[in-house]
Amino acid sequence: MKKVNQDLLNERRKCTFDIGELTTLIDGGPEKTRDRKEKEEIMLSKTFDRVPEEYLSHKEKFENAIKQSVIIFSLVRRLQKEGKTTISNYRDVISNLLRSTTLRDGSPLGLHYIMFMPAIINQANDEQQAQWLERAWNCNIIGSYAQTELGHGTFIRGLETTATYDASTKEFVLHSPTLTSYKWWPGGLGQAANYCIVVAQLYTNGKCYGVHSFVVQVRDEETHEPLPGIKVGDIGVKFALNSVNNGFLGFDNFRIPRNQMLMKHAQVLEDGTYVKSRNSKLNYGAMVFVRVVIVFDMVNYLSKASIIAVRYSAVRRQSQRKSGEPESQILDYLTQQNKLFIAIAASHALRISANKLWDTFNTINTELLGGNLDRLPELHALACCLKAVSTSDTASFVERCRLACGGHGYMLSSNLPLTYGLVTAACTYEGENTVLLLQTARFLAKTWQQVASGESKLTPTVEYLKTASSKNIPEKWVNSVENIVNAFQIISVRKISSCMENMQRRVSSGSSFEDAWNMSSIQLTSSAEAHCRVIILMSFYEEMQTCAKNVSPELRIVLNQLMELYSVYWALEKLSDLMQYTLVTSEDVESLQAWYEDTLRKLRPNAVGLVDAFDIRDEVLQSTLGSYDGRVYERLMEEALKSPLNAETVNYTFHKYLKPFMQGKL
Amino acid sequence: MKKVNQDLLNERRKCTFDIGELTTLIDGGPEKTRDRKEKEEIMLSKTFDRVPEEYLSHKEKFENAIKQSVIIFSLVRRLQKEGKTTISNYRDVISNLLRSTTLRDGSPLGLHYIMFMPAIINQANDEQQAQWLERAWNCNIIGSYAQTELGHGTFIRGLETTATYDASTKEFVLHSPTLTSYKWWPGGLGQAANYCIVVAQLYTNGKCYGVHSFVVQVRDEETHEPLPGIKVGDIGVKFALNSVNNGFLGFDNFRIPRNQMLMKHAQVLEDGTYVKSRNSKLNYGAMVFVRVVIVFDMVNYLSKASIIAVRYSAVRRQSQRKSGEPESQILDYLTQQNKLFIAIAASHALRISANKLWDTFNTINTELLGGNLDRLPELHALACCLKAVSTSDTASFVERCRLACGGHGYMLSSNLPLTYGLVTAACTYEGENTVLLLQTARFLAKTWQQVASGESKLTPTVEYLKTASSKNIPEKWVNSVENIVNAFQIISVRKISSCMENMQRRVSSGSSFEDAWNMSSIQLTSSAEAHCRVIILMSFYEEMQTCAKNVSPELRIVLNQLMELYSVYWALEKLSDLMQYTLVTSEDVESLQAWYEDTLRKLRPNAVGLVDAFDIRDEVLQSTLGSYDGRVYERLMEEALKSPLNAETVNYTFHKYLKPFMQGKL
Repeated sequence: MKKVNQDLLNERRKCTFDIGELTTLIDGGPEKTRDRKEKEEIMLSKTFDRVPEEYLSHKEKFENAIKQSVIIFSLVRRLQKEGKTTISNYRDVISNLLRSTTLRDGSPLGLHYIMFMPAIINQANDEQQAQWLERAWNCNIIGSYAQTELGHGTFIRGLETTATYDASTKEFVLHSPTLTSYKWWPGGLGQAANYCIVVAQLYTNGKCYGVHSFVVQVRDEETHEPLPGIKVGDIGVKFALNSVNNGFLGFDNFRIPRNQMLMKHAQVLEDGTYVKSRNSKLNYGAMVFVRVVIVFDMVNYLSKASIIAVRYSAVRRQSQRKSGEPESQILDYLTQQNKLFIAIAASHALRISANKLWDTFNTINTELLGGNLDRLPELHALACCLKAVSTSDTASFVERCRLACGGHGYMLSSNLPLTYGLVTAACTYEGENTVLLLQTARFLAKTWQQVASGESKLTPTVEYLKTASSKNIPEKWVNSVENIVNAFQIISVRKISSCMENMQRRVSSGSSFEDAWNMSSIQLTSSAEAHCRVIILMSFYEEMQTCAKNVSPELRIVLNQLMELYSVYWALEKLSDLMQYTLVTSEDVESLQAWYEDTLRKLRPNAVGLVDAFDIRDEVLQSTLGSYDGRVYERLMEEALKSPLNAETVNYTFHKYLKPFMQGKL
Repeated sequence: MKKVNQDLLNERRKCTFDIGELTTLIDGGPEKTRDRKEKEEIMLSKTFDRVPEEYLSHKEKFENAIKQSVIIFSLVRRLQKEGKTTISNYRDVISNLLRSTTLRDGSPLGLHYIMFMPAIINQANDEQQAQWLERAWNCNIIGSYAQTELGHGTFIRGLETTATYDASTKEFVLHSPTLTSYKWWPGGLGQAANYCIVVAQLYTNGKCYGVHSFVVQVRDEETHEPLPGIKVGDIGVKFALNSVNNGFLGFDNFRIPRNQMLMKHAQVLEDGTYVKSRNSKLNYGAMVFVRVVIVFDMVNYLSKASIIAVRYSAVRRQSQRKSGEPESQILDYLTQQNKLFIAIAASHALRISANKLWDTFNTINTELLGGNLDRLPELHALACCLKAVSTSDTASFVERCRLACGGHGYMLSSNLPLTYGLVTAACTYEGENTVLLLQTARFLAKTWQQVASGESKLTPTVEYLKTASSKNIPEKWVNSVENIVNAFQIISVRKISSCMENMQRRVSSGSSFEDAWNMSSIQLTSSAEAHCRVIILMSFYEEMQTCAKNVSPELRIVLNQLMELYSVYWALEKLSDLMQYTLVTSEDVESLQAWYEDTLRKLRPNAVGLVDAFDIRDEVLQSTLGSYDGRVYERLMEEALKSPLNAETVNYTFHKYLKPFMQGKL
């Protein structure tokens, strides 16, 4: 191993807590840490000798991704065969295994695991599972998932692709009636997948029964040629995800057998009779599952970005603060701490919320399978707002980290631009954030009516809406996390109640409910966000009380500082809400600001230790600025020298174009 | 011309003002509009038949950029020869001509115009100008500008490259003593330029005289081979600007003649005697000039993003607001208006401020050349904060526009991701934003001392610091732009005074000035931003009062709505400041919010007309989502079909990798 940068060595030396202890806490226990490391060892056992991906053309990126993916997914298959990963522990495959690979811009085979297999698991009946599941699990077929169309994303009811049952042949006829009905976005669909789940409007016996899912073969298994009646291809270049091979798909009266409609819930009988699902909400579980996975993804990306930016800021020296002194580590500037430390704290806050969401999902999903749908709306509302807030917070903090690295953060070799590209995508996919916040708002509006009508039993995550109004914020504000949590509860209560008053006023003065909703929608999204802030802050606060018993005193101090930083950061960000709805005064604002700055200073000595504890290996981090040894400048130059432009001293365009131009001949 | 989308036709039909009148106002008069259109016609007369740039590899992008650049810059040279563009109207070349080209990701020859030529104009003495200027103006040589190093950006005094005078040969010896001293970032330097301005620490007679500029030939004019002693190459892939060919440059005791130090100001005589500049601040003018250009660039990018997002939002239909109705144009959702209209308003606000900055620059620069340096600090402070605020606002609004276009905004063919990549770069280059805000804060701190010491004469842009305290915000808040401007003045006053109090308290309790400054730096940046908001709001307000006399009543109404929107948007964004420092109450907040929402609704019918008025041609806009005819889905598919991946039905990797993997043979 090359020499480690001296500034990083110094930082690690002064760390006040046991970094390994924090890593274990993050993983969820020593066994999980061991298991993770063991799997990482396997997943990273193959190395790839190559020109860095970012120098390649779009087509070469795909080809490179396929080459690497088959090796990496062979390793996944090996883990499956050895029983180290099973179908019942599915999140492990898609969140953890895929995360610890070198495929930083995604894989064309990813959606096979993330969407195709779960759709079969959740929506196929027993016969269909027998037919498809093992082949899919073994990657004998590669699937994608096609729902979104060129003209329709959010509004699923508006999808245009049709699946019309033909009882005479016992087939469904899939058709794309318009350009806007072409499927658009499915990962791997362009050139990689040969199967696909297709969501289409089901017609049988002349009647439309809304959207249903179908297993559709799109390419020949032997030749990989698109089947007749199928138009499939690559959708082109995107902000990021360029090795994912997102595709388009159109049908020209393409026929599939009846038993390729996924029939665990609704069915079409041979004669075309439609048998509806016992409950149309049963598919919600899968949607929530994907959103849980997204929140965990955000935690991962945010950890990565904070590692890169904090290590770089310890190595980078710029400007003398006092003349005659050596240049300062930029991590010593308060403005830099202000940019970075919130990312570390938010990574912990979001991880805790993601764990909580995952537990809630498992509890409610079990109830669901037992036929109890009572808490489904709550789960849905919770997943919607956590997905929206976690993705938008992460995007903003990742970008803040990137900008904090100055020019070098703009180099792709830092891995920060790509990280931002991946994270910001999550603000849109699986439910556009504004739309999701409005879904949560709808649930809050209903809950508020229950509160207003004096209903005594509210579901757990919204119980505070009833109790918070009665809690008093002390007349004299005292800086404490508990007070901030209480204040946010009151803000949330006041926001939803103000929305409801405005709605009512608008309806009373003649607006339709829908128009009143639209007119109130800026406020409604703000109300949903406020609710989500309460959830995240409360979860952090509760988790820290549990932690207090289980962790060493040294670590407890630092974790408390992170919680304080997170809370006071958001109190300051939402200061106008605090001033509007609580008793916080102008003087209190100054003391909040002082508390915030003081917490930054306290965290400063442990900054590098805190990001080291995220324990993300250099091979996964893939950042010139963020590697463990801090050889920032050496790596920047090494990566630059790999540019194919540097392979020759003079590019051919000089002779052909530039020189004639300079000589005035052009 | 293909059929125009019906929704866009309807939007244009209901526009209440004369779009052409607004275009003329934006351009600055009918003659300017004519001149602009005429030049656009010439600049866009060549078309390029090609695979879209984004499908190319890094190396191919460079080659493509050279091919196109020589054609485009031949056109610029033609305009020069015809006298349509002269060296005295320099901003016209770099802001306007280069803007209206198809080179959307920048040109390897751009820095030649933006930095190399201005450096020669401003820093070379008469003999040197005779030697270099004409060759540069005619592009017989192509130059770059090398200041930033791998290890140093912001802190110019820390640059490590040395230029040591050797009196025995009358040469300077340029040397890169460390890896971190390598020049890094100069546009065009990688493979395109053969000359370069190099900023290095000057040593003569054994003494260091700080950084000075040198003209350095880096490549042979005939062969283009790097000269012996020069290490030069491409720095690799970036977030954007990938056709700019940013390079690195290192020297191994490389010698240049004495007269290649730029000697208009300081000089080194033949015997090595150093003659210092009459005034070391004379170079500030050039730095300010570049920042003016950046603010105008931001206006341009923001206009582009708003055109794309607004036209798309008029064409895109999603969800039924009431069942049975057709799906709504997404532009009808209040949340969408909230995302987009501020971008239109901000484009006007920033253009007005940029014009004002440009006028101030010209006034003060004339004084400067006449030896009067009094207003230089003010100009510097003004340019610093306007550059910082305009780039960061633009980045955030562009990204807001992009996200508002959902998944399709993530496609590179929308041109929104690239626009963001270009704009966010400006937050870092030519002075990192936080550093610039602290420069402005330093000026404000000095000004505040003048105010405190009762000095009567303040320079114009900070005069309000003295007068604002005495102005009263009415006890009862009334919604008006004037009140908002006044409130922002008071906020700015209070912020800087609070910073100064905190600084003093810290110094009194034993901190050094430097430590107190660092501890106050979060507040100081916030204070500088507040000052800048005052400047922008005041400029908008004053400009509208002038406009009131010169524009038609129909247009005046709309421009007033834009000013109101801009003002109330920022009042709500900075609500906690308003509540902390003025008499705004919780009830007033509700009325501000209502005013904001009401203004969105008023602007809605004119949204498309307003972006049409920016009058940016499709060839320059290069967006599938934003073209004038609104053929969004057709263009998305057309661009996708150009993907080289779609040229063959089956990619070779299927047979070589994917199939063996699927069959379990890998």
